[in-house]
Amino acid sequence: MGELNDSYVKVAKLKGEFVWHHHPDEDELFLVIKGHLTVKLRDREINLDEGEFAIVPRGTEHLPVAPDEVHVVLIEPKSTCNTGNITDSRTIANLQRL
Amino acid sequence: MGELNDSYVKVAKLKGEFVWHHHPDEDELFLVIKGHLTVKLRDREINLDEGEFAIVPRGTEHLPVAPDEVHVVLIEPKSTCNTGNITDSRTIANLQRL
Repeated sequence: MGELNDSYVKVAKLKGEFVWHHHPDEDELFLVIKGHLTVKLRDREINLDEGEFAIVPRGTEHLPVAPDEVHVVLIEPKSTCNTGNITDSRTIANLQRL
Repeated sequence: MGELNDSYVKVAKLKGEFVWHHHPDEDELFLVIKGHLTVKLRDREINLDEGEFAIVPRGTEHLPVAPDEVHVVLIEPKSTCNTGNITDSRTIANLQRL
């Protein structure tokens, strides 16, 4: 939905458990617009309510989990793949522009 | 308060009228945490309530205005000066790290 310097500002609806992954060279910001998001890390978890955000630093393994549908804004470099170092059926190769 | 790739994530309290300025090479994101912010552009204005954000593209003259104190998050390149192409008493040379 927008560009911010070398990053895209993306909107996404998430539901369920994603896949453990990391982005070797890219930090990633999650901002919750509606609902609740848990970002599991290997040693702890971050719980985000509406209006809250967190930055997952590069190289940090994480697993986004949303028991109920959550609307999020993601800010990450244009080069970032949603599934990071993993390629599976959820990997999005072509983003849709709003 | 944080780093996101080549950008800083900053928090600021604003009150009153800032100064018309632009950033020639840097896009800037304003996210309102508490209160209300108006970002005046030369041809229109953007009104942001809590939880809303806007991106001011590089080169776009803008004037943040907050009749009452507003708490904002700013995401902008590490190189960005708060007063852009203007230097005045509100120019912040040394950021404080939380």
